[in-house]
Amino acid sequence: MPPSNPPITVAIQGEAGSFSHAAAARLHGPDVRLKPCPDFEDVFQSVVSGEAARGMVPIENTLAGSVRENYDCLGAHPLHIVSEVHVRIRHCLIARPGASLAQLHRVASHPMALAQCRRFFAAHPDIVAVQSYDTAGSVRDLMASRLEADAVIGAALAAETYGAHILARDLEDHPENYTRFLAVAREPAPPKAGSAAKVSLMFTLPDVPGALNRALDALAARGLNLTKIESRPIPGRPWEYMFYVDLLDTPDGRAAEALPFLQHDASEFRVLGVYPPATGDEA
Amino acid sequence: MPPSNPPITVAIQGEAGSFSHAAAARLHGPDVRLKPCPDFEDVFQSVVSGEAARGMVPIENTLAGSVRENYDCLGAHPLHIVSEVHVRIRHCLIARPGASLAQLHRVASHPMALAQCRRFFAAHPDIVAVQSYDTAGSVRDLMASRLEADAVIGAALAAETYGAHILARDLEDHPENYTRFLAVAREPAPPKAGSAAKVSLMFTLPDVPGALNRALDALAARGLNLTKIESRPIPGRPWEYMFYVDLLDTPDGRAAEALPFLQHDASEFRVLGVYPPATGDEA
Repeated sequence: MPPSNPPITVAIQGEAGSFSHAAAARLHGPDVRLKPCPDFEDVFQSVVSGEAARGMVPIENTLAGSVRENYDCLGAHPLHIVSEVHVRIRHCLIARPGASLAQLHRVASHPMALAQCRRFFAAHPDIVAVQSYDTAGSVRDLMASRLEADAVIGAALAAETYGAHILARDLEDHPENYTRFLAVAREPAPPKAGSAAKVSLMFTLPDVPGALNRALDALAARGLNLTKIESRPIPGRPWEYMFYVDLLDTPDGRAAEALPFLQHDASEFRVLGVYPPATGDEA
Repeated sequence: MPPSNPPITVAIQGEAGSFSHAAAARLHGPDVRLKPCPDFEDVFQSVVSGEAARGMVPIENTLAGSVRENYDCLGAHPLHIVSEVHVRIRHCLIARPGASLAQLHRVASHPMALAQCRRFFAAHPDIVAVQSYDTAGSVRDLMASRLEADAVIGAALAAETYGAHILARDLEDHPENYTRFLAVAREPAPPKAGSAAKVSLMFTLPDVPGALNRALDALAARGLNLTKIESRPIPGRPWEYMFYVDLLDTPDGRAAEALPFLQHDASEFRVLGVYPPATGDEA
């Protein structure tokens, strides 16, 4: 028998059972080995140092917008985006086995998740919302009786991971709630000729009329669709910006033609990754 | 004698003595009447309802980036941007009169301000940083002996407003720290022919290759410089964006020619304001 591949180690922010874990499991299977990290900077450092083969980080949410800290991390570390995954954010009410909704007094979750479940709290005025900054870790603490709350709003995977009970599903006010995750690695993804590819770029531009437009012209003239543009301030250069752009390459790879034109105008320019686009928004 | 104008009421988030207060005082003089509000949404509501003639809100900082909540508020309320102000963020160490640096154990400020003063805390390892969400209000509480800290990091204006003492100035790690504030009102600013103007727009675009580019072409072809582009998610329409764009009009007003072309391609389009650009970054 051939030796089976050892499981890959993926660094995530937070604990097992988070939506980042769910994204990592979608790409690498349920047996993915996790390296939980206290913050996003630590996720990137873990991949740079080789402690993890991949980092899996949220980059934008369809309700909250971009995770700007991760844009800054992409710019600051010499890593490559090798995949993207869209995860539907379904908030579950998670309690200890045997608990019932009527017994709950305090429900903990990340402030963002609490803000996305306003209808639940409006319908249950006796339940107090408690802020916690690591929802999966809160489920773990709940099961170890170390949490100052009787339930947690989090991912179904958190309940599964720690043997907790799901009292209710789909607590979110808005079903169109997806997070796009990026996987980063030390080496770029191997090119796949003939298949669709997404290209992520970062660049700065001179502060002259039409500079951004000229840069985007190089893309539009070749039918390349810009799927996202984000700008971040450059410390020490007030009112100048680093642009982060995602585009869909054409099947015949016309992005390769456009990039030299874009690079010519840019003062700084880097291809952050070329990778397969997420296939559908999985439920 | 003609009657003097009554002072204008400006809604700000937080208490008197904040950087928002400093921005309001720059535009309307030191006697500006303030309406302190708990959050940005309340600032906009106060102007819509007529309780305040103006709202003054931060829209971007040269280190932290855009204040996205205020972009969303601009889109959600029928107000007009009538001015912009750049305020240099100089963090002061503020204590009660008679206190000395050597006596300090706990220093409170907004998490953003604490993060911008890392060198100060590194140089004073015995001082604990305490998070508070309203720095000017913390100075007021400090003077009323109602604060669980012996000093606050905040604006010089907070010390002046509440009669506190400035123990040290320029605590910020990075001097290139500016916040751009926008003043919003129910009516647009009166047009000033012949002088430079900034124009703020919001629009959505069809998801086709080159859509953003075609929109920006209308600006670039007329020598209009794009000074800022921000995109925000549209709730209920995953992976579609509302674009917020600022541009500098030409002295002969060519923006007026460009806007109909831009509007033609956009599915939603609104001019958020036409106003004089901030003159220099005041210290």
